[in-house]
Amino acid sequence: MSEAKNTTENEDTQLLEREFDAGVLRLTLANPPANALSIALMGTLKEALVAAGDDPAVRVVVIAAAGKLFSAGHDLKELTLHRADADRGRAFFERTMRLCADLMQTIVHLPKPVIAEIDGLATAAGCQLVASCDLAICTDTSTFCTPGVNIGLFCSTPMVALSRNVHRKQAMEMLLTGETIGAADARDYGLVNRIVPKEYLNQAVSAYAQSIVSKSPLTVKIGKEAFYRQAEMSLAEAYDYTVQVMVENMLARDAEEGISAFIGKRKPEWTGE
Amino acid sequence: MSEAKNTTENEDTQLLEREFDAGVLRLTLANPPANALSIALMGTLKEALVAAGDDPAVRVVVIAAAGKLFSAGHDLKELTLHRADADRGRAFFERTMRLCADLMQTIVHLPKPVIAEIDGLATAAGCQLVASCDLAICTDTSTFCTPGVNIGLFCSTPMVALSRNVHRKQAMEMLLTGETIGAADARDYGLVNRIVPKEYLNQAVSAYAQSIVSKSPLTVKIGKEAFYRQAEMSLAEAYDYTVQVMVENMLARDAEEGISAFIGKRKPEWTGE
Amino acid sequence: MSEAKNTTENEDTQLLEREFDAGVLRLTLANPPANALSIALMGTLKEALVAAGDDPAVRVVVIAAAGKLFSAGHDLKELTLHRADADRGRAFFERTMRLCADLMQTIVHLPKPVIAEIDGLATAAGCQLVASCDLAICTDTSTFCTPGVNIGLFCSTPMVALSRNVHRKQAMEMLLTGETIGAADARDYGLVNRIVPKEYLNQAVSAYAQSIVSKSPLTVKIGKEAFYRQAEMSLAEAYDYTVQVMVENMLARDAEEGISAFIGKRKPEWTGE
Repeated sequence: MSEAKNTTENEDTQLLEREFDAGVLRLTLANPPANALSIALMGTLKEALVAAGDDPAVRVVVIAAAGKLFSAGHDLKELTLHRADADRGRAFFERTMRLCADLMQTIVHLPKPVIAEIDGLATAAGCQLVASCDLAICTDTSTFCTPGVNIGLFCSTPMVALSRNVHRKQAMEMLLTGETIGAADARDYGLVNRIVPKEYLNQAVSAYAQSIVSKSPLTVKIGKEAFYRQAEMSLAEAYDYTVQVMVENMLARDAEEGISAFIGKRKPEWTGE
Repeated sequence: MSEAKNTTENEDTQLLEREFDAGVLRLTLANPPANALSIALMGTLKEALVAAGDDPAVRVVVIAAAGKLFSAGHDLKELTLHRADADRGRAFFERTMRLCADLMQTIVHLPKPVIAEIDGLATAAGCQLVASCDLAICTDTSTFCTPGVNIGLFCSTPMVALSRNVHRKQAMEMLLTGETIGAADARDYGLVNRIVPKEYLNQAVSAYAQSIVSKSPLTVKIGKEAFYRQAEMSLAEAYDYTVQVMVENMLARDAEEGISAFIGKRKPEWTGE
Repeated sequence: MSEAKNTTENEDTQLLEREFDAGVLRLTLANPPANALSIALMGTLKEALVAAGDDPAVRVVVIAAAGKLFSAGHDLKELTLHRADADRGRAFFERTMRLCADLMQTIVHLPKPVIAEIDGLATAAGCQLVASCDLAICTDTSTFCTPGVNIGLFCSTPMVALSRNVHRKQAMEMLLTGETIGAADARDYGLVNRIVPKEYLNQAVSAYAQSIVSKSPLTVKIGKEAFYRQAEMSLAEAYDYTVQVMVENMLARDAEEGISAFIGKRKPEWTGE
C-alpha cells in the first residue's frame, strides 16, 4: 500500500486533473492515450473521491476524461509486465482487481452524488466506471462496450456494475459479443441518463450538478446511502429500514427548514444538519 | 390505532369515493386540492383495500383520483403541526411513515390486482402509490416525480417502490434532481404500462380491469402472490417454489375447467376453486 | 427417470432436430403442430443440452423451432390425460413442472451460450424458454405471451424467467391479462435482443453465434457462470467473488494469449486453457 501511495503521490498531478467550482469537484482522467485505469490512476482517483467525501465544500463529483476516449479500462501493459513475477502475476492481478472493485464501491458509498461525463469510448473497466456512477451524461457520439471476451479476459468485474444498470439479455449481449453500443442504446438500456450534443456536454452536466448542489447536502447523503442499501433488501426489509430513515430525516433541521420554506413559499436555507 | 380508526370512520366518505361495478372496485382519492396522503386518507384507503381483499365480489381494484392531481404525497401541514409535540413529532412521523409503508405493502399483498389510473401529477408518496400498484395506466399529460430532496426530505420510502419498477440510474435521476418526468419517460422507464388520451382513460382502465375480471379469481390470486414472492428469491429457490405453486394450481378445479374448456374450444366457467 | 429416458430415446429424432456446424449446435423443436413442451420433448432437449455442455466441439447452442410457432408451452393434452391417475395427476404434474424448471436452469448453467431463434409465437413455457436463453433474436412478426391465466393455470414458472428479463409492471401486464406482445415491445422490455426480417433470421443468429465461437471457450464459460452467480449477490459479495474470478481468468493461458495478441496487434489462438 505504501508503495502504491508513493506512486500515486508522484504521478498524481499528471494522471488526474482536479477543478473545484461552486460545490462541484471535477475529476478529469488524464492518462493518455486511453485513460487506462492503471494502479496509479485508480489509486489516485480513489483517494480523490475519499477526500471529496470528507470535504464539506464538495457537494457533487463529476468524473470526466481528457482526450478522445473516456477510458479503455485496465492497463494491459502494466498487467502483462507482472507475468514475469515469481507468482506469474497473481498478487499483482489481485491487487489490481481488488483496487478496481474498491474504487467502484467507493463511488457507490460516497455520501455525495457522482456524475459520469462521457465523450468518446468507455470500455471494460471504463464502462464499469460509468455504470458505477449515480448519473451519467454522454455525447451522442459516445460508445460503450465490455470487450474483455475478445482478449480472453471476460469483463467479470465490469458486469457487476453493468448488470445492476441494465436488463440481463442486454448485458449478456455486450459481454458475450464484446460489441460496441452507441449512445442511444446506452440510454435505452439504462446505462446513461441523457445524451447531449458535444457542444452542450459541459453545460448539461453542470446543470445536473448545480441542481444537486442546490439541495441540502444532508438530505442527499441520507438518500443516496439509503438508495443502495434498500436496493439489496426484500420489500418488507426495505420498508422497515426506510421508514426509520424517513423519521430521522424528518427530525433533521434541513427537513424542518425545507418543509417550512415550501409551505411558506420561500427559498430554503440549508445548514446541512 | 383506535384513534386512527375513529378519524377514518368520521372522514371516510369525504376522503375516498367508492364505486363498485361488474367486479371492479373503483377507489377515488378525494382529498382536495392535492389528494395529500394524510393519516386519515391512508388509513381509509388501507381499510378499503383490506375489505376488498376479503370481499369475493371484488375482483379488481382501481385507484383513481379526483381533481387535477393524482396525489401530491404526504400531508406536509399535518406533519408540520406535530413538530410541536413533546417528542418533536417523532411518534407521529413514525406512525405516518409506517402507515404509508403498510398501505403500499397492502397493495402488493392484496390477492387481487390493483390498477393505478393516473391523470395529472403523481408526486413523492403519490408516485410511490403508482409504483406499488400491479399495473398503471395514465393520460398523456400525466407527470411523475419524487421531489422530496427539494424540501430536505429525501423520498426514501417512495424509492423502495420506484426502484422496484425502474432501472437504477433513472430512479436516481428522479430522486437526486427532483425533476418531473412526462408520461412517455414513465412508460419507457417501466413506471406505467400504457399512455392513453384523457378521453379514453376510463375506457382503457376498464378494458384492463374487465380482462382480469374474466379470469379465474383463484388463478389470479395464486399468480399475484407467487409473482412478488419469487421476485425476491434466487433462481433455484424461485423454481422450487413455483413448481409447487404450479402443481397446486393444476389440481384446483378452475385449472381443470380452464384447460378442459381450452381443449374443448368452449368458454370456461370459473368457480374460484 | 428410466421410463422418461426410454420415451426420450424412442421419440428423440422426431421431436428435436440436431444440426452441428462450425462450433454451433442447432437444436430445432419439431413437435408439431405447436412444439408443445411435452415430457418427451423437454427430456430430449435437456439431454441434448447436457451433452452439448460436455462436448468440447460445441461452442454455442441455438434453440430454434420448426413450423409456424416457436412453442406453445406445456402439452395440455398430456397433462389432462393424467387427471385420470389415482392421485388426480399430482405426481405427473410435479414431474412435468420439475423437468421444465430443470430444463430452464440447465440453459442458465450450461457453460456455453444459448441463443433463442424465434419466428412466430412463443407462449407460456415457450416464452419461458426464450427468457431463459442468454440471447434471443426474433423476426419482426414474432409474438410473445404468458396466457396461462386464461385457462386457469397462472404462468408461475414462466414468470421466474420472464421477471428476470423485464421490469415488473410489464411482466405483470403480460401475466395478468394474458395478452400477446409484438416483437418491438419484446425488445423494448428486454425479452429479446434484436429483431430482424424473416429472410435474415438465420444469418443474424449465425453472426451472433460465430462472434461467440471466435472467442476463447474457457473465457466464455468463466464469464457466463460468473454472470448468473453474481446477479444474485449483494454488491460487496459480487465484487469479492468476481475479483477472484478475474484473477483466475488472468492466470489462464487464453487470457495470456489474448492480451499478448491484443498488445502485439495479432490474432489470438485459443487453446481453451
